[in-house]
Amino acid sequence: MSLDTGSDSRRQNDEIRRIDAYWRAANYLSVGQIYLLDNPLLREPLRREHIKPRLLGHWGTTPGLNFVYAHLNRVIRGRDLDAMYVIGPGHGGPAMLANTWLEGSYSEAYPEVPRDEQGMRTLFRQFSFPGGVPSHVAPEVPGSIHEGGELGYSLAHAYGAAFDNPDLLVACVVGDGEAETGPLATSWHANKFLDPVHDGAVLPILHLNGYKIANPAVLARIPQEELDSLLRGYGYRPRYVTGSDPATMHRAMAEALDATITDIRRIQDEARSGGRTERPSWPMLVLRTPKGWTGPSIVDGVPVEGTWRAHQVPLAAVRENPEHLAMLEEWLRSYRPRELFDDDGRPVPELTATAPHGDRRMGANPHANGGLLLRPLRLPDFTAFAVDVAKPGGSVSEPTRALGRYLSEVIRANADARNFRLFGPDETASNRLDAVYETTGKQWEGEILDVDEHLVRDGRVVEVLSEHLCQGWLEGYLLTGRHGLFSCYEAFIHVVDSMFNQHAKWLKTSKRLPWRRPVASLNYLLTSHVWRQDHNGFSHQDPGFIDHVMNKKAEVIRVYLPPDTNTLLSVADHCLRSRDYVNVIVAGKNESPDWLPMPQAVLHAARGAGIWEWAGTEDGGQPDVVLACAGDSPTLEVMAATAILRQELPELRTRVVNVVDLMRLQPAGEHPHGMSDREFDALFTTDRPVIFAYHGYPWLIHRLTYRRTNHDNIHVRGYKEEGTTTTPFDMRVLNDVDRFQLVVDVLDRVPELGVRTALLRQRMLDQRTRHRAYVRTYGEDLPEVRDWAWPY
Amino acid sequence: MSLDTGSDSRRQNDEIRRIDAYWRAANYLSVGQIYLLDNPLLREPLRREHIKPRLLGHWGTTPGLNFVYAHLNRVIRGRDLDAMYVIGPGHGGPAMLANTWLEGSYSEAYPEVPRDEQGMRTLFRQFSFPGGVPSHVAPEVPGSIHEGGELGYSLAHAYGAAFDNPDLLVACVVGDGEAETGPLATSWHANKFLDPVHDGAVLPILHLNGYKIANPAVLARIPQEELDSLLRGYGYRPRYVTGSDPATMHRAMAEALDATITDIRRIQDEARSGGRTERPSWPMLVLRTPKGWTGPSIVDGVPVEGTWRAHQVPLAAVRENPEHLAMLEEWLRSYRPRELFDDDGRPVPELTATAPHGDRRMGANPHANGGLLLRPLRLPDFTAFAVDVAKPGGSVSEPTRALGRYLSEVIRANADARNFRLFGPDETASNRLDAVYETTGKQWEGEILDVDEHLVRDGRVVEVLSEHLCQGWLEGYLLTGRHGLFSCYEAFIHVVDSMFNQHAKWLKTSKRLPWRRPVASLNYLLTSHVWRQDHNGFSHQDPGFIDHVMNKKAEVIRVYLPPDTNTLLSVADHCLRSRDYVNVIVAGKNESPDWLPMPQAVLHAARGAGIWEWAGTEDGGQPDVVLACAGDSPTLEVMAATAILRQELPELRTRVVNVVDLMRLQPAGEHPHGMSDREFDALFTTDRPVIFAYHGYPWLIHRLTYRRTNHDNIHVRGYKEEGTTTTPFDMRVLNDVDRFQLVVDVLDRVPELGVRTALLRQRMLDQRTRHRAYVRTYGEDLPEVRDWAWPY
Repeated sequence: MSLDTGSDSRRQNDEIRRIDAYWRAANYLSVGQIYLLDNPLLREPLRREHIKPRLLGHWGTTPGLNFVYAHLNRVIRGRDLDAMYVIGPGHGGPAMLANTWLEGSYSEAYPEVPRDEQGMRTLFRQFSFPGGVPSHVAPEVPGSIHEGGELGYSLAHAYGAAFDNPDLLVACVVGDGEAETGPLATSWHANKFLDPVHDGAVLPILHLNGYKIANPAVLARIPQEELDSLLRGYGYRPRYVTGSDPATMHRAMAEALDATITDIRRIQDEARSGGRTERPSWPMLVLRTPKGWTGPSIVDGVPVEGTWRAHQVPLAAVRENPEHLAMLEEWLRSYRPRELFDDDGRPVPELTATAPHGDRRMGANPHANGGLLLRPLRLPDFTAFAVDVAKPGGSVSEPTRALGRYLSEVIRANADARNFRLFGPDETASNRLDAVYETTGKQWEGEILDVDEHLVRDGRVVEVLSEHLCQGWLEGYLLTGRHGLFSCYEAFIHVVDSMFNQHAKWLKTSKRLPWRRPVASLNYLLTSHVWRQDHNGFSHQDPGFIDHVMNKKAEVIRVYLPPDTNTLLSVADHCLRSRDYVNVIVAGKNESPDWLPMPQAVLHAARGAGIWEWAGTEDGGQPDVVLACAGDSPTLEVMAATAILRQELPELRTRVVNVVDLMRLQPAGEHPHGMSDREFDALFTTDRPVIFAYHGYPWLIHRLTYRRTNHDNIHVRGYKEEGTTTTPFDMRVLNDVDRFQLVVDVLDRVPELGVRTALLRQRMLDQRTRHRAYVRTYGEDLPEVRDWAWPY
Repeated sequence: MSLDTGSDSRRQNDEIRRIDAYWRAANYLSVGQIYLLDNPLLREPLRREHIKPRLLGHWGTTPGLNFVYAHLNRVIRGRDLDAMYVIGPGHGGPAMLANTWLEGSYSEAYPEVPRDEQGMRTLFRQFSFPGGVPSHVAPEVPGSIHEGGELGYSLAHAYGAAFDNPDLLVACVVGDGEAETGPLATSWHANKFLDPVHDGAVLPILHLNGYKIANPAVLARIPQEELDSLLRGYGYRPRYVTGSDPATMHRAMAEALDATITDIRRIQDEARSGGRTERPSWPMLVLRTPKGWTGPSIVDGVPVEGTWRAHQVPLAAVRENPEHLAMLEEWLRSYRPRELFDDDGRPVPELTATAPHGDRRMGANPHANGGLLLRPLRLPDFTAFAVDVAKPGGSVSEPTRALGRYLSEVIRANADARNFRLFGPDETASNRLDAVYETTGKQWEGEILDVDEHLVRDGRVVEVLSEHLCQGWLEGYLLTGRHGLFSCYEAFIHVVDSMFNQHAKWLKTSKRLPWRRPVASLNYLLTSHVWRQDHNGFSHQDPGFIDHVMNKKAEVIRVYLPPDTNTLLSVADHCLRSRDYVNVIVAGKNESPDWLPMPQAVLHAARGAGIWEWAGTEDGGQPDVVLACAGDSPTLEVMAATAILRQELPELRTRVVNVVDLMRLQPAGEHPHGMSDREFDALFTTDRPVIFAYHGYPWLIHRLTYRRTNHDNIHVRGYKEEGTTTTPFDMRVLNDVDRFQLVVDVLDRVPELGVRTALLRQRMLDQRTRHRAYVRTYGEDLPEVRDWAWPY
């Protein structure tokens, strides 16, 4: 349908009338959710006891979200579009609930909330009600991949959903509050990474209500020409739909949306027929409507509609104030519910006929329940990428370099499926994963010069210097049923701490919803880690993301610290096969010893923690001391300390325990991977001193093990926030996790060794002093440390 | 000077020549830092042993930073400007070190690095060298308030520095990599919050080198008209300086900078004379130069200058490869060092004469060592804002509401000094601090409508919906010698986890530098916390920032959980007086019981943890059980549990311990606030069961106390990531930190009570069941819970 021809004005008016009815119905259902416990159809005059005791919800953004939904429905039906709806102002939860109930998708997910009067009562009552549904768009809401409670990530999610879905349209409402956040502000630039040939389309809809919680919004208060310049500067061609008169606005929105969809199709057709190679200016919409549109205009003498006062509950004292109660009833009746719902509370046929059908309904679009579409990755045999380990510690390799070769094959094997991507903030090569460029390139829709390398219009690697965008894209990609990995400098993954929180919360909730199907895990490769930031120093040294992750539910969290290349390969394969987790893999990129031949690495990774019998000297009995390690640098130092002890104190029975899967340390009742006390005691003994060298902040090991029998004997060394630009070994000395200190720790904790070790102890301390002098003179580590290799 | 008049071309050419010499000198010193161990003046041909063993540093951005520095020097001298330099690409550390050494400010801070040959040798050698100085701009660098190792925050810091410094010009280089980050992308909008009358000027210089680490930069590869549109859309008037020929570029830069400074002065003059009230379009510069400008053009057959390959060390194998060594020497000599430094290695008089003098040197500007300018806040007597507590728990109040009244007076008392601001992401009123609007307004330079409230051109409250901007502004404000507080929803403070990391690192390092003077602490008020997000639900429920903070150095970290209004006031007063810390205060905004009259609150806050004798029943002896609490909601539940126990088991000797200052729980050796074991044992006993109800994730308490004698008996309840939109008490039940569960915990851990408590235990569990049924039916908490008050 085109509204601007004038050819069939009756048909057009009919359509506008139907859209308006749909919108009124959604608005009615939204207000009902915020206020009503009962009397959902207003069969009787509204009374105090029909009102919820606690009025919780956000009205302000909701009518606009409903308006967009209704108009998207029109074009979906008219053009048989495959479309999803990402709602940045996710606090407008009533909108998505109202619309999915109206179109029927809600009742399909929740048969206990049918499309009738009883269902409407439940829909109303459950909203923001204890034991009911949250006030925001959330995993519980069909059709959503985006919570929106924390602002900033909608547009990144939308682009992530559109990648490799050439037929998908992702409409994304950006609220004017969200538009002020950093992540959203840079997400506009995602259009430089969207391939019009192989990716779908994102339709940003900047919804300017004018106000946030308590303030005007920045973009609502800059001159129109400045806003237009900004959006064009972002590379979009904006259309504006502005006003408050419903009839006018319906017509304007329908026209704008028609023209926009036509533009999108034209861009895609041109690109897909080879007629265009440069980056297109994608269309977008700016919708300016009053905040709390169609709600109470004036309450208690002050303006509400069109102001920040409409943000949450415009009439706050409905139970106590008869005037407010009357205003609420008038407000609800203003939508003319008797025209919209039949006597049984069902939407009238005109409404249901207005919505799309089946999977075309945005609440039923399978992309928004990505597990439905998920196809397992075709994974090559990772053991084929093993490094040869003739003897433990007899060779070195760069773990992430080997991983890059494996990932390159993963990309090749799934090239046709187009369901795997590698995201990174300009660090893929720095992180030594650059073997992937043998099978793919970096997606880049901007200008490409001769001097550039690996830039292509359509690549599996997506790099932008924004951890927020990387994370947001990957989340959107995973939640729509694909696979991926985010490689990042360890320190800067904290940039997305809060995004991780929200994704972990999403997964936790989703896993409890039977209709949400499992999605691929979110895989982090954290490298260029704290122990090897030689050229960047203190700002780049922070292993605390692991601690942050540990606060989230055990059922969704996994942390791996592979000690060498082969173990990393095995762990990576495991993570790429997993579902519904967040996997954190911490691994170095620099040359480091290969400890395990692949068969042992596979076994070790599967066990998650184990005794390296070949390294220790306990010979079947109980050891005198346990040297434990987790992480590649600590493992190296523990091995070097063990070697010193073997040579200097051959009678000392040492045991080396290496931990790959950090969750193994927890009690079995705390985490699915947790060891039983019997297992733990078998590794760490019940009474021997344990010197534990750990990759990160040491107290995490205590937190994980404080309930264990032998906890009082566990002495942990790790990063204690002493960093700078210095050599690898000097970093370990600064933090007391070097081999010499570890030997001293052993001597101090095995009193049976007695005074005869005093000399050795002093020699170890002297070595630390010697190191300090040497490194400050020559700028390099002591040769015997630099060239050290496991001697056994 | 104006370069476009043609009136005195010889003088102009002289000036250009001097600037070029200064630039060459800075470039020479930069390359020297990256490469040279010795032979700093190239008195002899360069040999292998003159080269550092590890080549660490970032050349790519450095010549551009030097170029800007030299040109800023010109306008500072010419117009006697008070200017600072914020370097977004902080990895270009050699630039700031070179320039501050050249102008003399470096040697004043570090007399061991004088301006002579020996000093130059030290300057070179120490850079990125073990025991030397970091490779990035860092606290060790005079003139800096910005590290830049983590990209994204330069422009926010610059605006924070400019607030309330009307005569200050803050030049801020934004690298093209940084420009892709979210925080930077939204920082452009900070111009909507800068008052041209009372604030200084920020001059953003977008430095487009074209590339990041391994990729072209987004803004470098969009069409010029799109870039121009973007920057105008942000509200700036950009001038472009583009090229690579030094002579041409010097002239263009000088002209552009002159015009820019003239524009800034005109804007300020107009505004300050009352001639302009609307928001001005501030000028900015776009500098397009080749990455690695003036460095090696081709290395090993591939282009380096002007490509990403110039990012770090353009010649990587200088020690091993004689050709590289020769190229390095040629490169160094291309700057003609013999013209720039005299025989003693001192900069020639022409150079020193070119730099500004005294405090006008950017390396010596006191604003960049804010402690020099810091004036203590005038703080009103906080006890005047006390709530009246006739008996403990006999009344309720809203803690942050009272704090708002206090802050309002703080603002009034320091109005003339203009050295205190309150930052918040649109939540000041939501967080119930709105009493501050009695003495100030919200700074807003955009359009103001009649319906708006509290918006002024010049207010002490700064609100924008970006935690990144709030944090960045506050950091810039504090580091330039002022005071402030950031109030934030508790969950979303994680958005700035990584910014907090960098600030904590900055403080840690600064405290070890004698010439850096103490600055005011960074104060967080985290409210709208996990236990009272009734209307927002799970996405808004996360108390993990405390855990995150705990990983940083004890010497800079403080965490307070005041249990009631009066204690909050006392804590806030303490924090506003403190220096060089990060203070985290977690406090509720909802009505909650007042436990302590002000005198006791002051004492309790000062002690940080103490026994509430009036609440327990131990009567001088040893208690049977300790009920401990930290945080307002847990305190309420512990008190209610204690009341139940007093009534039901009057013979049970209970002790209530409340913890305000979380750091008190740590061993004295771990934290300056830590209790000795004797103190700890006196509070928590050595052998009695301790039921500890904590505000956040429970394991933090274990982490803090695992070394204590009685740790095995400490049983912690806290938030275990079970959240949704529900009532306050239901949240506590969901997480097992409710009064009934706490009573059950006591019964389970005091076996002496024996079977006679089985009935009470069952009643408690029944109460939980009853609660669940009630809240799900009526949507409210059980009346006896809702209306509960401490009965003693």
